[in-house]
Amino acid sequence: MQQVETDARLYCGIGPNSYRVRIFMAEKGIDLPRVEVDLMKGEHKSPDFLKINSLGQIPVLVLGDGTIITESVAICRYLEERHPEPPLFGAGPVAKAKVEMWNRRVELEVMGTIGDVAFHSQEFFKDRVPQFPAFAEAQRSNVPNKWAWLDREMADGRPFIAGDFFSIADITAGVAAWLCDFFQLERPASLGNVARWLERVRARPSWNA
Amino acid sequence: MQQVETDARLYCGIGPNSYRVRIFMAEKGIDLPRVEVDLMKGEHKSPDFLKINSLGQIPVLVLGDGTIITESVAICRYLEERHPEPPLFGAGPVAKAKVEMWNRRVELEVMGTIGDVAFHSQEFFKDRVPQFPAFAEAQRSNVPNKWAWLDREMADGRPFIAGDFFSIADITAGVAAWLCDFFQLERPASLGNVARWLERVRARPSWNA
Repeated sequence: MQQVETDARLYCGIGPNSYRVRIFMAEKGIDLPRVEVDLMKGEHKSPDFLKINSLGQIPVLVLGDGTIITESVAICRYLEERHPEPPLFGAGPVAKAKVEMWNRRVELEVMGTIGDVAFHSQEFFKDRVPQFPAFAEAQRSNVPNKWAWLDREMADGRPFIAGDFFSIADITAGVAAWLCDFFQLERPASLGNVARWLERVRARPSWNA
Repeated sequence: MQQVETDARLYCGIGPNSYRVRIFMAEKGIDLPRVEVDLMKGEHKSPDFLKINSLGQIPVLVLGDGTIITESVAICRYLEERHPEPPLFGAGPVAKAKVEMWNRRVELEVMGTIGDVAFHSQEFFKDRVPQFPAFAEAQRSNVPNKWAWLDREMADGRPFIAGDFFSIADITAGVAAWLCDFFQLERPASLGNVARWLERVRARPSWNA
C-alpha cells in the first residue's frame, strides 16, 4: 500500500461512514495512519474528541498541519485531489456531475431511509435526533420501495450506479446495502438490476477493507 | 450575462434548491435557458416531468444531448467544471475538502433540521415522507440549537462558512437562513457570528437571483 501524508491521521471505527472511507482508500491503493475510535465505549463523545469534531462523529482526517476534515465524502474528496487515479468522483464535467447526482440520490433516498429507521429506533442514537419509533417503522416499510426505485433506474443495464465506471456512488450504495442487511431491513431479492450490481461491487477486493 | 450551452435547459421554480442554483449561476455570471416548473400546479408530478426526474423534484439540468443532471449540487458542480472561475467549490485539495465538509455539515445539521420541520408538517410534502407532526415540533425547537452550533464553529472570526472565501457552502447556509425565515423558525439574533456572516452574504448581488 502506498502511503500518503504519513503525518496525517484518520480517526475511524465501526459504522458505515468509516467503511466508506476504507473502501475508497482500498480502491485508490492508499492508506493512512489510523486512530481507532471506539464508538461502543463512547470515545466519539469524549471532550478530547469533541475538540476535533464538535458533532462527535467519525471519520475525521487530521492533516499534519492540524487541518481538520470531517464528513466521509469530504475526506474522500481530499484523497481524490491528492491522488487522482483512478478517479472515483468521475472524469470530466458530465461524469463528475453524474457521480455527484447519484451519490446524493443514493444518500438521500436509500441511505437516508435506512438512516431514519436506525436513528429513530436505536438506543445508540438517542442523543442524535428526537426519536419517533413510529417514524422508524414507517420508514422500515419504505426501504424496499427505495431499492425498487433504484432497480428501475438501473433498468438501462449500466454496470455501475453512475454509469459504466465504478465511483463513490457505488461505495455509498454498497455500504447502504451492507447497512440494510445489518439492521435486517428488506432488500427484495427479485430486484435483478440491484442484485447484479451488488454482486459486482461485493466481488471487488475493496469490499473487505 | 454570458450564456453557457444555449441548447441546455434548466428546469426550475420556487423553493430552496432552485434558489441555490440561481445564486450559484449569478456568482459565476452565467445563465441558462430556463423552463419554469410550477410546483403549486403540481407540474413536478406530471408524467412528462417524471420521465425527466423520477423523484419529481427540481431543479434539473438537461444538456443538449439529452443528458439529465438532477440534484442542485450536481448541477452546480457541472457548471463549476465547465466554467471554473470564480471557484465556488474551493481551489486546491484542502479548500475543496473544506467546502465539501461545510456544505455537507450545513445541509445535514441546519438545512436537514429545517427540512424535518417542513417535511413533517406541511401538506405539500405529504407524499414525500410519512409525516409525524410531533417530530416536526421536536425539530422546530432544535433549529435555534443548530444555528447556535454554527455560530460557535464560526467563533474564529472567518468571514465565510468554509474559510476566507465565498463558496457553495455559503449559498447553502444562506438559503437555509432564507428557508428558516420562510417557515418562521427561530434564528436567535444574539448569534453574532452568524448574523455578521449572513449580512455579508445577503449584501451580495447574487442574493437577488
